Amino acid sequence: MPAMNAFYAQSGGVTAVINASACGVIETARKHRKQIKNVYAGRNGIIGALTEDMIDTNKESARNIAALKHTPGGAFGSARYKLGSIERNLAEYERLIEVFKAHNIGYFFYNGGNDSMDTAHKVSQVSKRMGFPVACLGIPKTVDNDLPITDNCPGFGSVAKYVAVSTREAALDVLSMAKTSTKVFILEVMGRHAGWIAAAGGVAGSAPGDAPHIILFPEIPFNKRAFLKRVRHCVEQYGYCVIVVSEGARYANNQFLAEVGTRDAFGHVQLGGVAPVVANIVSDNLGYKYHYAIADYLQRSARHIASAVDVEQAYAVGRAAVRFALQGKTAIMPIITRVSDKPYRWRIGEAPLSRIANREKMLPRRYISKDGFGITEAARRYLQPLMRGEDYPPYINGLPDYVSLRGASVAPLLKKKFVV
Amino acid sequence: MPAMNAFYAQSGGVTAVINASACGVIETARKHRKQIKNVYAGRNGIIGALTEDMIDTNKESARNIAALKHTPGGAFGSARYKLGSIERNLAEYERLIEVFKAHNIGYFFYNGGNDSMDTAHKVSQVSKRMGFPVACLGIPKTVDNDLPITDNCPGFGSVAKYVAVSTREAALDVLSMAKTSTKVFILEVMGRHAGWIAAAGGVAGSAPGDAPHIILFPEIPFNKRAFLKRVRHCVEQYGYCVIVVSEGARYANNQFLAEVGTRDAFGHVQLGGVAPVVANIVSDNLGYKYHYAIADYLQRSARHIASAVDVEQAYAVGRAAVRFALQGKTAIMPIITRVSDKPYRWRIGEAPLSRIANREKMLPRRYISKDGFGITEAARRYLQPLMRGEDYPPYINGLPDYVSLRGASVAPLLKKKFVV
Repeated sequence: MPAMNAFYAQSGGVTAVINASACGVIETARKHRKQIKNVYAGRNGIIGALTEDMIDTNKESARNIAALKHTPGGAFGSARYKLGSIERNLAEYERLIEVFKAHNIGYFFYNGGNDSMDTAHKVSQVSKRMGFPVACLGIPKTVDNDLPITDNCPGFGSVAKYVAVSTREAALDVLSMAKTSTKVFILEVMGRHAGWIAAAGGVAGSAPGDAPHIILFPEIPFNKRAFLKRVRHCVEQYGYCVIVVSEGARYANNQFLAEVGTRDAFGHVQLGGVAPVVANIVSDNLGYKYHYAIADYLQRSARHIASAVDVEQAYAVGRAAVRFALQGKTAIMPIITRVSDKPYRWRIGEAPLSRIANREKMLPRRYISKDGFGITEAARRYLQPLMRGEDYPPYINGLPDYVSLRGASVAPLLKKKFVV
Repeated sequence: MPAMNAFYAQSGGVTAVINASACGVIETARKHRKQIKNVYAGRNGIIGALTEDMIDTNKESARNIAALKHTPGGAFGSARYKLGSIERNLAEYERLIEVFKAHNIGYFFYNGGNDSMDTAHKVSQVSKRMGFPVACLGIPKTVDNDLPITDNCPGFGSVAKYVAVSTREAALDVLSMAKTSTKVFILEVMGRHAGWIAAAGGVAGSAPGDAPHIILFPEIPFNKRAFLKRVRHCVEQYGYCVIVVSEGARYANNQFLAEVGTRDAFGHVQLGGVAPVVANIVSDNLGYKYHYAIADYLQRSARHIASAVDVEQAYAVGRAAVRFALQGKTAIMPIITRVSDKPYRWRIGEAPLSRIANREKMLPRRYISKDGFGITEAARRYLQPLMRGEDYPPYINGLPDYVSLRGASVAPLLKKKFVV
């Protein structure tokens, strides 16, 4: 096969380590210049391909590319932009292939979650049909940890570590003040559909009585009575109660707790935030003084406390995608296969995109304790290795030295413009 | 002077490094056994002295005491408990001296903020009056950085670093998604009266256009019109807008943007949730998609990203307090004196408690940019050195290895019980 270019794009919510995957792709491609001349990165994800707005990564220094490994966010820009069915969105798929053809792009690396794997799969089909077959490789990325087949998803280990570390730290704070001040502390974490991130908070404690004392999972319908009983028990028994709540926590009728909303001093309904809703339930019924934190984007951008295992795996799936492509493989995604828990060992495998796309891996019930408020030993065995190791970024003057790329554009070649 | 015991207590909101001060006190006292036999620590702060509930630190291993240096929260328990005027609270002051007398306590080390310095000062006066003079030393601690005379307060540098790092990280996240998703991100930080912590967020950016684009200080009355104009400008110019807002942000009539209406033990208004208020203002008027984070206790307990300068200074003021006491000094507080900005150099000085107590050091207007939405170079020169250096705690299995003390009680000696 003659040398061709590659296209790489980031998709969906970014993570602390998605750039490590980009680094894995670009560094590996650079070792195979005879097959891959250049990696073009989509500016703002797939939109960059549709609008022919691509970044020439050959214009970036080796040093800058290496620095991606320790830089959070999406260095090329990501997008929440879903290409739907081929029938309905044919023009977009065809446009993609036109752009790939014009720029001699024979490799498509799509770094994202469920939707992105679906898109990569479809691009592979359309490209064949249009007589310009492109090697389409998915690269897993999602803090939600909900891709099937792979043991875990790059991005999750770091958010898990952030949540567990933050829970442990805040718990020490609350414990020391509980005698005369805050007795209940609530940490709201991400995970709209699955409780993986909330479960990670459970790793903060190890002995009975350790925080967190309660985890509210999306998988377990919220039972106000049982919840309040447990809060009261914790405050009476341990002097304080630390709660980790998933943004997706919901009632038995599937209504999100967050939908109920809170009111400000003027009686106006406040949007968003399950933590204040839980806080109000505690305060109204038990009268305990509370505080709450909403980690929001801090949790998924916290590269300063990234898991070393996560960084390594994020890099490895990027590298593996390029290697698979060079072996002539297409329509697959590198996966992480767990070889053993203790010691934790893993290797890279592969799975067809058709088996990944549009499926969600939920937190298994056996990872949630019988009472629904905590995690089991099985969950701990699964979660703990993913948080392991610290991979600190370099610092200058007390702040992490994150890279900003040059971001030089590839000259457009098509006359027709495409508006998204 | 014959050997006596010392009493140490933590007071008010805890920090990531207050235990480093405790470590400085205890390790230094242990080097002078001929003068200080034992350090008794108040369980839950000053309440532990009043109720004769003290922790025998001689029962803690050297290893545990050393580990205090990297453990956040208040290891002995802290309290929001203010002793008021001597006239009104004479019984409490007398009880303190009775307990000190019974336990042969000749040194009182009080680790806290403004109110605590006032208490330490009064204890020194009452003890003299009662014929049992106790050396009373304040040890500065407050994330609010609002103690006068000292150049800065231990606890602040670490929260400043946390806020600057988090702002930089979240900004990268938002920037990469802004094309199709969140355009405005709001980080709510502590600082009820003074904008020191909010100002620290400003250090995250260095070039024009860098985040944060807007800081809302308690010192600058909120001007909705000017604020919205700036938000719109940022989104149009840079594609996104990152806002750091102090919990104490307020209108020109001094009303807080967010006021939940409850008050803490000191009668201070309990704040929380200014971020959603600001988010609603943005959304209602400009329609931009937003996200917000509320760091709350995470920011002041984040020992994992503590400033090395802060840890060193927290230890130094603890050590200095013991040394001053052994030199026969009383009613003073060790202070941090800045010798130079570049290179940053500091030394320990001292100031009388009477000059520290009940005074607040506000963020100077010259640290806030003319438009009121950012910080000046002078602020940067002041703030940056305080965040400098990383002092990572040890980790086990991916989580920080924080110490839990044995916490063995000192046997009570007084028949009379005291109820607080």
